[in-house]
This record gives sequence, C-alpha cells and structure tokens, in this order.
Amino acid sequence: MKVYGTSVSGNCYKIKLLLHLLKIPYEWIETDTRKGETKTQEFLVKNPVGKVPLLELDSGEFLSESNAILYFLAKETPFFPADLLAQSRVLQWMFFEQYSHEPYIAVNRWLIHFQNKKDDPKIPGNHIKGLDALRIMDDHLSKNQFFGSKQPSIADISLFAYTHVAEEGHFPLSDFPNLSSWIRRIREIPDFIPIY
Amino acid sequence: MKVYGTSVSGNCYKIKLLLHLLKIPYEWIETDTRKGETKTQEFLVKNPVGKVPLLELDSGEFLSESNAILYFLAKETPFFPADLLAQSRVLQWMFFEQYSHEPYIAVNRWLIHFQNKKDDPKIPGNHIKGLDALRIMDDHLSKNQFFGSKQPSIADISLFAYTHVAEEGHFPLSDFPNLSSWIRRIREIPDFIPIY
Repeated sequence: MKVYGTSVSGNCYKIKLLLHLLKIPYEWIETDTRKGETKTQEFLVKNPVGKVPLLELDSGEFLSESNAILYFLAKETPFFPADLLAQSRVLQWMFFEQYSHEPYIAVNRWLIHFQNKKDDPKIPGNHIKGLDALRIMDDHLSKNQFFGSKQPSIADISLFAYTHVAEEGHFPLSDFPNLSSWIRRIREIPDFIPIY
Repeated sequence: MKVYGTSVSGNCYKIKLLLHLLKIPYEWIETDTRKGETKTQEFLVKNPVGKVPLLELDSGEFLSESNAILYFLAKETPFFPADLLAQSRVLQWMFFEQYSHEPYIAVNRWLIHFQNKKDDPKIPGNHIKGLDALRIMDDHLSKNQFFGSKQPSIADISLFAYTHVAEEGHFPLSDFPNLSSWIRRIREIPDFIPIY
C-alpha cells in the first residue's frame, strides 16, 4: 500500500506510526501541503477533499481521513478492542481529537512553528480551547492508563500525534503530569518511531 | 437508555433519528446548550467535554460524541456495513462531517438562525468552506446513492443532520441537485422522523 503524506503533519504521522507498530510495509509518497501538492488536479482525483494523509490500496482504491485510515489498519489487531463499548470509546476519543483538539493544538503549532505567524489573531482563542482539550485528557489519565481501552489503541495514536509536539504550538505540557507520563508510555511501545 | 440532547441540534437529532429507524426505545432528557445546561457541575460529571448528545446506558455508563454514539447503536444493524473497507468509508465520511462540514454549516445555521448574529465576522469564511463541503458531497452523489455504503448507513444519518437544514445557515441547497435527491431518499426510509 501507498501513503500520501506530509512528513511533519501529525495527521500523517499517525498512519506512519501505526504502520510501524504493526510492521506493515508501505511506500511513503511525500505530498507537501505547504507546496500546494494536495490541491493539484492530479491529487484531487485521488482525494476530492484535497488533504493528506491518503491511503492507496493495492487494488487502486483510496481511503482518506487519518482516523478512518487508522481504523482500517487496526480493526483486526490489538490496537482496536473487541468489546463494542470499548470500540465506541476509542471512536469517541478520535472524534474528540478531530473536533476539540486538532483544530486548536495542530493549528497553533502550524501557525507558530511552521508558518512563523506568531501574531495571527486566531492563536489566543485556539490556545484557550487547546488547553481545555489537554486538561480533559489529563483528567482522564488521572484514572486511566490509556484512552478508550485498557491497552494502547488507535485512540492513543490519534491523540498522541499532535499532543506530544504541542509545545511547538506553545502549549505547556509540563503543566499536565498525567499527559507527560502517558507520552512516555506511548514511546515505550515496541517498534515506536518518532515524528522527526 | 437515556439521551441528553438539545432538540434543535443536528448532532443530537442524529441520535434521535437512528433510534427511531432502529425502533429502540429511549428516554430523551432535554439539555439546552443555549441555557448553559451542558456546563453545569452536574452535567460535567457525566461528560467532561460539556457537550450533547450524551448517551447514558442502563449500566450507568456514558458515551459522548454523536458519531461514536451512532456507531455504538448501529454496529450490528444494516446501518453499518459488514465489509472492512465499507466500514472505513462510513467512518471516513463521518470524520469529514465533523471536521470539514459541521464546523461551517452547523455554525452558520447556529449564528444566523438561532443566535440572530447575521453580521458575525466568521460567517463569510464559514460560508465558503461549507459550500466546498456541499460540493464534495454533491459530486460523490453524482455516482453513488449513499455515502460509504450501497444502502443508507450512519454516514448518511451523520451528514443528513445538518445538510438538510443548511438553508437555515443560508446555504443554497437548490444549487446541489444530487444532494436534494439524496435528502428525499433519506426521508423515505421507513420510520424516518423530522428534526422539528
């Protein structure tokens, strides 16, 4: 299978990390959003939404949305639980990630760390909402080792991607001790690879 | 089971609609975001994210995030396909709905129709991105009857919720003929109930 992705993107890193954890071989096709490579006519035929990551199966079919790709890859593995309520909780945290976490934490990282737009008017509001998301995660981790399941799942991989580099968006991870412990636990999973 | 929800919310209507289609009995507990009822200490114990819909199981456990609740209710029914790739496509469209559709289409409906904030500076930008989402959906429906599967699935229910009332946010549905036909098909599903 092929993965179209921007290497520094957390959404794309999710797929790379899971593929390594599952020891699934793949071809990475660097497709840089910063160079407009997801908005070309050629790419839009593959994914009309114009975003990466994008998975191309050996059959030639495409699948988009990072968290849907994680589900596709993990469904029959220990990274997706067997119990229906646990499965639903994994998805709950992944929808939380895309709605209440990524739009603030990933966007501020993008503006501050990659675009050098430290005065962008969106940053202060995103900062407040991103801190809310980190606080909710930290509270959950005060009573749980992982998100959604008793062992690492694709909910953890999804949330790890932008959380562990949140300081690049000026979010103070040291204020969230349970988050910091969880980040260490994820890094200890066999075959873990870093984003950089 | 109990559903905490704001009746006019598309995210909450998703759950009500699926429960009716599946003929599952439930108790609706009206919880109005406009009155701050999702931000009380009592509610935050149930859902720390402070949002509805929220499902309370007979066991006393809670599940949040509208699309995760849809999965929980539909997993073993015809509204969730059996094939892994089809399942992943259903989720792909549901993540699209929460990231690229709801934040623009639902938010403009909220500002214009419910908050009477027609001059909110977010509206024009949301309008452009919401039209992008509707166009992507309309293009998909030029070759498909439904989203994600060959019969109605929870991807359709998820996308239907805010799409069919998009005109309340000043999105011109009549410009999208395939979307209009799809809306009619959803309304024809046995046991369909309207949002109002």
